[in-house]
Amino acid sequence: MKNDRFLRALQRQSVDVTPVWMMRQAGRYLPEYRETRRRAKDFMTLCQTPELACEVTLQPLARFSLDAAILFSDILTIPDAMGLGLYFSEGEGPCFERPVRTQADINKLGVPDPNDALRYVMDAVSLIRRELAGQVPLIGFSGSPWTLATYMVEGGTTKNFSKIKGLMFEQPQVMHTLLDKLAQAVTAYLNAQIAAGAQAVMIFDTWGGILSTRDYLQFSLHYMQQIVEGLSREYEGQRIPVILFTKDGNEWLEQIAATGCDALGLDWKLPISMARKRVGSQVALQGNMDPCILYASPKRIREEVATILASFGKGNGHVFNLGHGIHPNIEPEHVNAFIEAVHTLSVPYH
Amino acid sequence: MKNDRFLRALQRQSVDVTPVWMMRQAGRYLPEYRETRRRAKDFMTLCQTPELACEVTLQPLARFSLDAAILFSDILTIPDAMGLGLYFSEGEGPCFERPVRTQADINKLGVPDPNDALRYVMDAVSLIRRELAGQVPLIGFSGSPWTLATYMVEGGTTKNFSKIKGLMFEQPQVMHTLLDKLAQAVTAYLNAQIAAGAQAVMIFDTWGGILSTRDYLQFSLHYMQQIVEGLSREYEGQRIPVILFTKDGNEWLEQIAATGCDALGLDWKLPISMARKRVGSQVALQGNMDPCILYASPKRIREEVATILASFGKGNGHVFNLGHGIHPNIEPEHVNAFIEAVHTLSVPYH
Repeated sequence: MKNDRFLRALQRQSVDVTPVWMMRQAGRYLPEYRETRRRAKDFMTLCQTPELACEVTLQPLARFSLDAAILFSDILTIPDAMGLGLYFSEGEGPCFERPVRTQADINKLGVPDPNDALRYVMDAVSLIRRELAGQVPLIGFSGSPWTLATYMVEGGTTKNFSKIKGLMFEQPQVMHTLLDKLAQAVTAYLNAQIAAGAQAVMIFDTWGGILSTRDYLQFSLHYMQQIVEGLSREYEGQRIPVILFTKDGNEWLEQIAATGCDALGLDWKLPISMARKRVGSQVALQGNMDPCILYASPKRIREEVATILASFGKGNGHVFNLGHGIHPNIEPEHVNAFIEAVHTLSVPYH
Repeated sequence: MKNDRFLRALQRQSVDVTPVWMMRQAGRYLPEYRETRRRAKDFMTLCQTPELACEVTLQPLARFSLDAAILFSDILTIPDAMGLGLYFSEGEGPCFERPVRTQADINKLGVPDPNDALRYVMDAVSLIRRELAGQVPLIGFSGSPWTLATYMVEGGTTKNFSKIKGLMFEQPQVMHTLLDKLAQAVTAYLNAQIAAGAQAVMIFDTWGGILSTRDYLQFSLHYMQQIVEGLSREYEGQRIPVILFTKDGNEWLEQIAATGCDALGLDWKLPISMARKRVGSQVALQGNMDPCILYASPKRIREEVATILASFGKGNGHVFNLGHGIHPNIEPEHVNAFIEAVHTLSVPYH
């Protein structure tokens, strides 16, 4: 590994400068991504063709000195492999042809064999690892069981979460059977990604933050904990760090850290100094710049990077990142200013 | 006043049972609302015709034993009165024909005289007060300066907040001149509502929660504080309580309570016991049931009401409410079960 800053920081080991990557770093803000996307029939073809997924994964690394690559894929590959029929409708985002609403629907779902129905993901992981040739580590990922269930029950994106919450409040035991099945599926999926070459894994809990504390602990965190316990934390002698990220989950940082994960993803709402004070002795922290700062000038971007570095302060365990995926209309030169600022301004902290 | 529980609870005085109302209680879940809405040319006509606004405001009170009425209006009346040209486009929500993007745009904006351009709101308030005939108190409201600015700069609803945050990060001083003007406008607007008959006022900070702590304090809370200080807190010998509600603002409850407001609106993410522990000696608390509970059965609704009442515990200062506006596809009978449960189950706590 030529650059292992990212893996070292996740394990709270010393580094020369603070490592940095961006959620959705392979995405629409890059003209070369839009070009590859045009060549693919649709978004899922991009995810399901290992050569294209690999090409897109590597694009931001050719432009910027990023310290990690992240597999290009979608969080809904598991429900798709379960036979729900994922499709993307213009302006509406992801939808399922056959949403899950009842115990009978859930009983019919199998736990997909990641090396069969999700073979294309493992092939992409292997190919990317080969192409990376040890330049930087590769991150694998999955959606959390609660987040996957949200899309599966709602049948697509939603503002009110009426169906999933109706089911959760009225038939909690039915909800639990679905979440349990999903936790098994995610565990197998991430372990297969690790076996195929992923050197760290991240679980995106996009919708845990719509729950009350009581419901979050029972319906979301409980299943992420189950996954953390079931993951191959070491593979071929290397520690495989696990990052958990619940969007809008600042209320529960202590409980998330207590799952035994290695790092927490943070949005930008909380100063990182405060997050560090709350949980910094247990886990590394990944974040926490508002992605909208990238709309401002390179000068302003540098100022914000400096503020966040100072807020974290000296010591190990910080992976710089945005608090959310990069927006599609950001100028690539602003991204470059951001990445460079993290590397140059973080020297005095190490 | 036949029923002053709501006003007493906001002032943390003793009550016989916990008062309850619902955000968006006059709305689409009611067939009679949909009927009135059909008769109006469009949504703004409903807001701008005092007889219709009054009719709609009173509809939920005819069905349910609610302890307060809230003026039926829109949060964007002020920017509309400033000349931005508010319209509602199907599926896209509110839009402005002439968004505000530069210092020159802001310089052109006047602070609207609430008794002129917003006369229709004051007429609605007076008419509703007359029709209520002391049955329950009437709540007036406004959007917060930051929330109004968000729509004014973006030109409508947004997912990324790129324009408002771009402006805030790059030209904070320009942003401040807009927010200062809006704080003056909101203060005048709410004071006029009080003079017209509003017996409590609420400020909805729908978008404060997208900010970091630093930015929230400077760009949102600072201006709400300015408004709280400028309001007529007593009118004709009656105390006029002020409720502040920042959606997704649980991180800042202490700072919001310190503005000198009378009550905080709460979403459902935090147990109300914890909110009470943090700020309960300074302010009353309004909330905090997940509106999605109303999708569940009346039995489940009662259980949830019982849980929240027990979480708040004995003592004064609780106004029961949903943590967000009621969803449009809720069964009115479920609402009735909810309201009845609050009144009957809260007796032992008083």
